[in-house]
Amino acid sequence: VGARLGDHRAFAHLWGTEELRALFDEDATLQRWLDVLSALADTQAELNIIPADAARSIASHVRVELLDLDRIAEGTRTTGHSTLGLIRELQRVLPDDAHPWVYYGATVQDITDTATAIALREVARIVRRDLLAIEDTCLQFAENHRATVMVGRTHGQPGSPVTFGWKAASWADEIGRHLQRIGEGVPRCTAGQLGGAVGTLGFFGQVGPQLRTAFCQRLGLVDPATSWLSARDRIAEFGTLLALVTGTLGRIGNEVYQLQREELGELREAVAPDTVSSITMPHKRNPEVSEHLVTLSRIVRANAGVLMEGMVSEHERDARAWKAEWVVVPEMCLLAGTATHLCAVMLDGLEIDTAAMAEGVAATRGRFASERLLAGLALRIGKHEAQSLLQRLLADGKTADHDLVTTLAEHPELSVHFDAQTREELTAHPDVGAAAAMIDEVLARARGERSRHADPGP
Amino acid sequence: VGARLGDHRAFAHLWGTEELRALFDEDATLQRWLDVLSALADTQAELNIIPADAARSIASHVRVELLDLDRIAEGTRTTGHSTLGLIRELQRVLPDDAHPWVYYGATVQDITDTATAIALREVARIVRRDLLAIEDTCLQFAENHRATVMVGRTHGQPGSPVTFGWKAASWADEIGRHLQRIGEGVPRCTAGQLGGAVGTLGFFGQVGPQLRTAFCQRLGLVDPATSWLSARDRIAEFGTLLALVTGTLGRIGNEVYQLQREELGELREAVAPDTVSSITMPHKRNPEVSEHLVTLSRIVRANAGVLMEGMVSEHERDARAWKAEWVVVPEMCLLAGTATHLCAVMLDGLEIDTAAMAEGVAATRGRFASERLLAGLALRIGKHEAQSLLQRLLADGKTADHDLVTTLAEHPELSVHFDAQTREELTAHPDVGAAAAMIDEVLARARGERSRHADPGP
Amino acid sequence: VGARLGDHRAFAHLWGTEELRALFDEDATLQRWLDVLSALADTQAELNIIPADAARSIASHVRVELLDLDRIAEGTRTTGHSTLGLIRELQRVLPDDAHPWVYYGATVQDITDTATAIALREVARIVRRDLLAIEDTCLQFAENHRATVMVGRTHGQPGSPVTFGWKAASWADEIGRHLQRIGEGVPRCTAGQLGGAVGTLGFFGQVGPQLRTAFCQRLGLVDPATSWLSARDRIAEFGTLLALVTGTLGRIGNEVYQLQREELGELREAVAPDTVSSITMPHKRNPEVSEHLVTLSRIVRANAGVLMEGMVSEHERDARAWKAEWVVVPEMCLLAGTATHLCAVMLDGLEIDTAAMAEGVAATRGRFASERLLAGLALRIGKHEAQSLLQRLLADGKTADHDLVTTLAEHPELSVHFDAQTREELTAHPDVGAAAAMIDEVLARARGERSRHADPGP
Amino acid sequence: VGARLGDHRAFAHLWGTEELRALFDEDATLQRWLDVLSALADTQAELNIIPADAARSIASHVRVELLDLDRIAEGTRTTGHSTLGLIRELQRVLPDDAHPWVYYGATVQDITDTATAIALREVARIVRRDLLAIEDTCLQFAENHRATVMVGRTHGQPGSPVTFGWKAASWADEIGRHLQRIGEGVPRCTAGQLGGAVGTLGFFGQVGPQLRTAFCQRLGLVDPATSWLSARDRIAEFGTLLALVTGTLGRIGNEVYQLQREELGELREAVAPDTVSSITMPHKRNPEVSEHLVTLSRIVRANAGVLMEGMVSEHERDARAWKAEWVVVPEMCLLAGTATHLCAVMLDGLEIDTAAMAEGVAATRGRFASERLLAGLALRIGKHEAQSLLQRLLADGKTADHDLVTTLAEHPELSVHFDAQTREELTAHPDVGAAAAMIDEVLARARGERSRHADPGP
Repeated sequence: VGARLGDHRAFAHLWGTEELRALFDEDATLQRWLDVLSALADTQAELNIIPADAARSIASHVRVELLDLDRIAEGTRTTGHSTLGLIRELQRVLPDDAHPWVYYGATVQDITDTATAIALREVARIVRRDLLAIEDTCLQFAENHRATVMVGRTHGQPGSPVTFGWKAASWADEIGRHLQRIGEGVPRCTAGQLGGAVGTLGFFGQVGPQLRTAFCQRLGLVDPATSWLSARDRIAEFGTLLALVTGTLGRIGNEVYQLQREELGELREAVAPDTVSSITMPHKRNPEVSEHLVTLSRIVRANAGVLMEGMVSEHERDARAWKAEWVVVPEMCLLAGTATHLCAVMLDGLEIDTAAMAEGVAATRGRFASERLLAGLALRIGKHEAQSLLQRLLADGKTADHDLVTTLAEHPELSVHFDAQTREELTAHPDVGAAAAMIDEVLARARGERSRHADPGP
Repeated sequence: VGARLGDHRAFAHLWGTEELRALFDEDATLQRWLDVLSALADTQAELNIIPADAARSIASHVRVELLDLDRIAEGTRTTGHSTLGLIRELQRVLPDDAHPWVYYGATVQDITDTATAIALREVARIVRRDLLAIEDTCLQFAENHRATVMVGRTHGQPGSPVTFGWKAASWADEIGRHLQRIGEGVPRCTAGQLGGAVGTLGFFGQVGPQLRTAFCQRLGLVDPATSWLSARDRIAEFGTLLALVTGTLGRIGNEVYQLQREELGELREAVAPDTVSSITMPHKRNPEVSEHLVTLSRIVRANAGVLMEGMVSEHERDARAWKAEWVVVPEMCLLAGTATHLCAVMLDGLEIDTAAMAEGVAATRGRFASERLLAGLALRIGKHEAQSLLQRLLADGKTADHDLVTTLAEHPELSVHFDAQTREELTAHPDVGAAAAMIDEVLARARGERSRHADPGP
Repeated sequence: VGARLGDHRAFAHLWGTEELRALFDEDATLQRWLDVLSALADTQAELNIIPADAARSIASHVRVELLDLDRIAEGTRTTGHSTLGLIRELQRVLPDDAHPWVYYGATVQDITDTATAIALREVARIVRRDLLAIEDTCLQFAENHRATVMVGRTHGQPGSPVTFGWKAASWADEIGRHLQRIGEGVPRCTAGQLGGAVGTLGFFGQVGPQLRTAFCQRLGLVDPATSWLSARDRIAEFGTLLALVTGTLGRIGNEVYQLQREELGELREAVAPDTVSSITMPHKRNPEVSEHLVTLSRIVRANAGVLMEGMVSEHERDARAWKAEWVVVPEMCLLAGTATHLCAVMLDGLEIDTAAMAEGVAATRGRFASERLLAGLALRIGKHEAQSLLQRLLADGKTADHDLVTTLAEHPELSVHFDAQTREELTAHPDVGAAAAMIDEVLARARGERSRHADPGP
Repeated sequence: VGARLGDHRAFAHLWGTEELRALFDEDATLQRWLDVLSALADTQAELNIIPADAARSIASHVRVELLDLDRIAEGTRTTGHSTLGLIRELQRVLPDDAHPWVYYGATVQDITDTATAIALREVARIVRRDLLAIEDTCLQFAENHRATVMVGRTHGQPGSPVTFGWKAASWADEIGRHLQRIGEGVPRCTAGQLGGAVGTLGFFGQVGPQLRTAFCQRLGLVDPATSWLSARDRIAEFGTLLALVTGTLGRIGNEVYQLQREELGELREAVAPDTVSSITMPHKRNPEVSEHLVTLSRIVRANAGVLMEGMVSEHERDARAWKAEWVVVPEMCLLAGTATHLCAVMLDGLEIDTAAMAEGVAATRGRFASERLLAGLALRIGKHEAQSLLQRLLADGKTADHDLVTTLAEHPELSVHFDAQTREELTAHPDVGAAAAMIDEVLARARGERSRHADPGP
């Protein structure tokens, strides 16, 4: 029975997706190991290291449904060896002339590191696919809401206005960099491993490197220049990629969470018909997915630290670091992949309350123009005097009480510099500066990237 | 099917114990929630908030074996609410006159925080029990090996000698401090929670605080002064306690791992008869448990960081932090508890190779006396001159080549200061200084603590 | 010249206080080492290990203003030894008959660990003092604002009302637990160190332990049972204490930052007359101190992880861990102490906008009563029916659009259950449940603690 | 006075290099800001936004030596604004017709982010240069020691032999991947910033984007598609790059530390003539630089976590995250750059004790051949029987006691399968498998990379 809450039936959907869980459950994990063993045998047969018949027999028998997982588990516990339970079960299952040739000359880490590389490649594919969907949605927001003016906020305080499209373009831009990082980093991270006892391939004599190359090729993995049993930068890099990606998803989630505050109400997660936010407060509507993106980003980031710590590995194999990966890598993949999926879904259904956005801007009573007013005044009385004057007029009391429209009209120190039309121009329409141009640039670059990588897939 | 490797049948024993897994599997977790609901109903009946019959009926029906977990899970997913699936299943299972009274006026976090407190108390009991066993073993080592001389090492280099008993006393001393920390911290960390919607107990009117006090009392938990829905220092503190404890277990594990190096061979993990360290190198014997202690300490520490991060919680409930606890707290408990268990077992079977220890000291050819020789020489020619002279004589070339016995005998600058007998005294017997006295002090303090806490249990 | 931004003249005030900087600058650090050397010599003279004259002479000469720090630095670099530069400078400065007796039989770590313990004790005193001030302010808020109703928020969404006093009481309650933790943990963390080469006090023969005890006593430090050269739990615990404390300060800071949002405007940092929030947007007023509390909490927490990692120390001294403390411990102390100071100042000047709080509650148009309405309706039609009905009536559309006062009056399914007076009672006055009782309990407990620890100081 | 130990005169050399400190001291930091201001003015003049004379005047006056840093600091503290002190000092220093045009339309973050990008580019150049030196040394080791046989170790236990050249090739291979990562990542990370108040460049009207592009071009920085005030993935990525790099340096350092153990003695750090490892134990020689690499890697990694956390930034600017960068980024650069420098120096002087390596192999008395013997025996009696037989013969007792040469000769179950010559062949010469071929592959790839990037520099 699963002791991890992330696998409890009632909550598994928050900490995994069906697709990802199917990659990391025990059957799938074991089958991936078996696939690696089969690929190894096939390659060895190809190079006449083992009999071709044995390889064929292995290929048809290394199927998880033929094995008794309890027996494997029992063997693992008894021997204290990570794969000897499996090896013995394979002996039982394989025909007599095949079983000496399975797992031939390999060591545990050859199997698990190679299987991990396969899993990571698949995780990268899933994450990349969902990031592309997120980017698409954000780009569409950027395009559709290029003129949807809303309050810009720094330090949590209303400042000059922005547009929602511009905000979404920033998300798309950041996601775009992750797609680049994945494109560059994933091939580097997903190398096969075949080193034998200490990494020198001593078991195989001089054919070792050729075997490894062919083995990696057969599995579609990068062939490393040398064994990387204790060179864990690949794994650590993959971990940081996931942490960086979920960092961005956490940023998007947090933004939605904050803008969904009822007092702002600019964005809202979609709510499915049967959803109940609160049983004690029936009126509530909580931004639960967006919150969860922040949650997931925290756990993924913490786990990335474990993988980086593991880089300081000792000698030719260091189980202190390596075994941590056994738990941390799948956990990170599950959580990061879930975050990517949930973010895509959340953005898909995002309610953009353009009226609330407009009201938010109006509520600042012209204060959105303070930057532009400063610019205009600076041209007239110099930048420093302009700053001093405006600070004096605007910095007292509660910010929300200031009304720039009135101040501008009625305060002689200001009104003397601007005629009525200019005053009107300044405060009637929020000026979002070059927001549209930046949106266009983000769109152009993203489209450029897409056309350069017509056939996606890391 | 479990997607977490820590729950895979073949590896679950490395990332959990039966006892701990039985605390955190889905049935146990749900039953703990149900126990909290039952205690709440009982307390409410006692205070005439709900009918006594309803409470009795609830008590007899809130048993996990009566519920359909798939239905609960389905309801959880459909409503997007953490416990509404459960609540509806309870409605189905409970008699008509009881079901309006279950989960009465409480909110999700009341149930889960209180259940977590119960779980943490139990985890603390288990960890404390195993730490006491570890302390016992270390104290016994300290006593039995008070005179077992071995090389002391600083910066990884042999220095003055120590005894194995003294090394073990340092472990015991550190474990003893953890027992103190648990004794002080766990009661503070394991408070009940009853706050309702936002923590003010608004549902219950003025009887709220009395209800909470009685509810906590019934469950044997600390009654908090106020709701702690977003005051997560208790959880974070518990996390740091586990991280500190596993830090020490990691230190012990790492020490065994290093001293088991074949070139040192001073300590060795016991090996069960069927254990196989390496399938490719049949001669090997790996320190697998000790390595694993380091592994576990890393993951527990990383998770502690997530809980500390969660302290910066917003407003009256902040799911970004709180939901992270759902996964991180059980994970930490499982791993820290496993580490404690494994360390106890490992120390129990530890092979202490006193011959290798003695050989290690002998191999330094008297260099163990360099501190003492310095002391003697300092009395004769002054400390600085003594340091200069010895550094000159001993600092060239490879440390391992220096033979202090011969140097002392043959080098005129030294031999002039010491007669033959003194030279013999200096190098014949390694001097472990006040090691024995420190052992006695550790033993005395530990025994004092034990007698003060005759009836253990946080 | 300082390369650390935290020491740049323009920014040092954000990353240190004068008081803390004066504890950790080079002169102070060195003087603390010298004080330890002097205490050691005095103790050694007391036990006739060194001449009394020498100790007296040492006491009068080990003053940082007598030493040439550049010469010390030069010696440190040349010898690659942490204190040999200092030792040689002491030789130069001390009279001939004293200099052989300074630093007698001690090793670097004896001096630095003991000096660190002294510094930590002082940091704990400062932090504790400022936490007491913070607790005072929060308790006063709790008392003064026991009836200041404001919106309670969960998941960032308005829920049932709370009072500002109750919110502040939660802060006080959490700070109170930190005061407990400091009271318990700091004495455990601040032990002296005297172990010599490998920790056995071999240099001193059998008088070693007596010397250490007297040495610790002279410095007012805890006498450890045994050397703790590689038992770093004390340092790690101190680090977690600081991280937990700043976690709470980060929570308070973040709360102020969020509640200062112009759209909420419930709290505001005081602004000094000359403060300028934004040069480009003159109207702005930023919650800069509260933000900074969050910033500081993040860095302190990250550093706490380094200290926990250092617990896995190897053999009798492990510079990989220990040297990290040299940088991380002062950094954490500076930042955590600064956070405590800034939080105290910020709370002192906090503007509590009770009108905005009341408006916030009013803006929910009776929705604050949804929990209470649910309670009332549950008594009439059963809990589940009540929940369904209210969810149906309130869960559609944008939460902010719901007007419970009108709904209650006009919706027949509801109005049938409540007469006009009851409806009025429900929505006219926000019900903050047992908030006042909880405040009283927090106040009572805090006062109890204060009276128990009349003479503060860890 | 500097409160940070990393800046204390006596220890600054361990936590910075002259070159790096000169990048991050207050003068240099301020000058970098001034350079950005000057570049901004020049670009604005070019686009006729400000008078050309003003820009020229600014260019000649924004020199740190003309400014009064105490006055700036005083202004910073008084206004609570990060650059207003500087702005006022510039007003004082600049001619009347120039001072309104300095810092025109920019905000603090425009200046600091752009200046940070410049600093990061320089740090990357330094780190890359030193990594190339490290790679060179490792490649030379790989070439020179391709046949220097030494014990391979897994789980800390001697296993099949490797060569030192092969070990060094793994270092070079890992460093090579970092060079790739830097080549790809640094340009992405080092973008200029110009966004004004909230990032929309509202101050400048439609010329904004053109201004930013020209401004970035002038500084040789990447022109971002949109403002990245709260899109901190670039900074976080840079942080992970440094953490990954120092992870590898920590691995190399730890390896040297462990192999320098006197009982192994295979590697030794060079010792400068005046170096003193221990004042209490004059015979010692400590691996201090290698230890320090591990220390530095820990702190850098912890800080990388802070930068990743900062990715979850709120709205258009979030000082909670951004201000953490102010301290963390320079600290990481200083420490990571120091680690790179120290590692290069350490490897340069590394003593490779080939005799000790050979003795280590000999001390295993033929056990190094166990993998190969298994291979040979597997061909004769099948893999599983071979494994069982060898485990039975070799797994009892203390590993170090096994003598494979004798066992092979005398044990009938084994000797029957191998004639004397084969036995001799098996155990006379350690077989390092494909180590040499892997070395060649690493060399070939590294040379290929070099020739592709003839003109280095990120």
